[in-house]
Amino acid sequence: MLGGAATYISLASSYFTQTRIVAVVGDDFAQEDADLLASRGIDLEGLERVPGKTFFWAGKYSDDMNDRTTLQTDLNVFADFKPKLPESYQNARYLLLGNIQPSLQRMVHQQMKHLRLGGGDTMNFWISDFRAELLETIKTWDFLLINDGEARMLSGETNLKKAAAKILAMGPHTVIIKRGEYGAMLFRKDSYFVVPGYLLENVFDPTGAGDCFAGGFIGYLAEHGFDLEGDHISRGMLSRAVIYGSVMGSFCCEKFGVERFRTLTRAEIDARFEEFRQFTKF
Amino acid sequence: MLGGAATYISLASSYFTQTRIVAVVGDDFAQEDADLLASRGIDLEGLERVPGKTFFWAGKYSDDMNDRTTLQTDLNVFADFKPKLPESYQNARYLLLGNIQPSLQRMVHQQMKHLRLGGGDTMNFWISDFRAELLETIKTWDFLLINDGEARMLSGETNLKKAAAKILAMGPHTVIIKRGEYGAMLFRKDSYFVVPGYLLENVFDPTGAGDCFAGGFIGYLAEHGFDLEGDHISRGMLSRAVIYGSVMGSFCCEKFGVERFRTLTRAEIDARFEEFRQFTKF
Repeated sequence: MLGGAATYISLASSYFTQTRIVAVVGDDFAQEDADLLASRGIDLEGLERVPGKTFFWAGKYSDDMNDRTTLQTDLNVFADFKPKLPESYQNARYLLLGNIQPSLQRMVHQQMKHLRLGGGDTMNFWISDFRAELLETIKTWDFLLINDGEARMLSGETNLKKAAAKILAMGPHTVIIKRGEYGAMLFRKDSYFVVPGYLLENVFDPTGAGDCFAGGFIGYLAEHGFDLEGDHISRGMLSRAVIYGSVMGSFCCEKFGVERFRTLTRAEIDARFEEFRQFTKF
Repeated sequence: MLGGAATYISLASSYFTQTRIVAVVGDDFAQEDADLLASRGIDLEGLERVPGKTFFWAGKYSDDMNDRTTLQTDLNVFADFKPKLPESYQNARYLLLGNIQPSLQRMVHQQMKHLRLGGGDTMNFWISDFRAELLETIKTWDFLLINDGEARMLSGETNLKKAAAKILAMGPHTVIIKRGEYGAMLFRKDSYFVVPGYLLENVFDPTGAGDCFAGGFIGYLAEHGFDLEGDHISRGMLSRAVIYGSVMGSFCCEKFGVERFRTLTRAEIDARFEEFRQFTKF
């Protein structure tokens, strides 16, 4: 079925702001999948279509949903992807770089002309096998989204507070560490914020939850961009962005793949944000 | 060195309220250990001294401190312990039953004459091998403190929200699930509260952290007992009690054994409570 980082990020972000997608698909890409994205108001001008097959991934989860095994990865048309931003994209103020080879992330970042806030995600493969390229890439980012295991791998520190301090020294002024069912943490030089995960009664499919977190995070920041002055983003705005990221990640897990986004409404999103307030306040 | 559930619980609780200890030790129990407890104002009238050796435990932690292996357990004088409450203890309003055989916990509970709030802790061994006795015991408790793995074992549910619902149906109106470094959750019939763990830069020794959590939890409730009307405890008071529990557990990990309690002050405790407010608010 329809999947991929750009899909989840843009679906989640679309509830908060006008979202533009940059990606490549093959000539097998279904019209109904493009229609789903378009129905959420997502700009598809940057969705390149080339001859061949679309990237494909399949995996299997452990019983507790905390581990997954990749069964199949076919790069297909993705192997030769050189992202080119349409003219209309280059003035966007907010950029979320999905998990992809760091040099391609950099290529996109460099095409942005008036960026207010840019950053992205990465994964263990780039950390271990493309380390120099990754470090060169993230040093210009405002924020890095990363999970706890990857933060330990990137920093060489087991303790997450120490890991975050080392990553902040690599360039980004904000590091968000995702901990799956245990929630998320946001670190800046002088402060940090921690939120527990939303307690779902049934985790149906965690695929894409991290990307939905990213989409909710950047989407909320873009929606409330007027609060942002240069490098100065209020701590409160960032914390709320982490909550909206957590909210979007939790909805993603409720159904298979992108299914939840066929019916999800902004009212449901805001109600869950309010639930976070209720179960964390003291 | 000095250890044991009653030791940690009473040391933690002593920062909040007059605390009385019920326990047994052998004739090898060091005067300096009794002096440490007395220096915190803990009433030792219920500390029974009998001929023989004091209970002894030794264990070894994994590198990430999340698992431990028991190296040695000698019951010694504990084997024949039949807790008897001094007259002056029987009118206490708050009771915390440390981890011990459920029938002994019940024996203590039954000696209390004017209890406002009583509950306690248990462990995997009692859940698996003394299940009927444990269920008979906790059905009269107001609250149960339990860790996540034990909650799953007791309820037969992997999902913690479902596990908590099943445990609430066993009797206690409040269930607190401890998740180690990931924090704690408090469940009641119609609401729940979740707090992430305190981010220590160095976890020196987690021994006793769960008991210190229990001591901080009950201690805070006893200190603010005037807020409590019969079965009606305010949700806010319980949440703050969970935070004070988390605070006490985090301090416990900073030094070996009970060492941290030689210098810890109430001002440090309240400052860390305030830190919790800062890093969780949004």
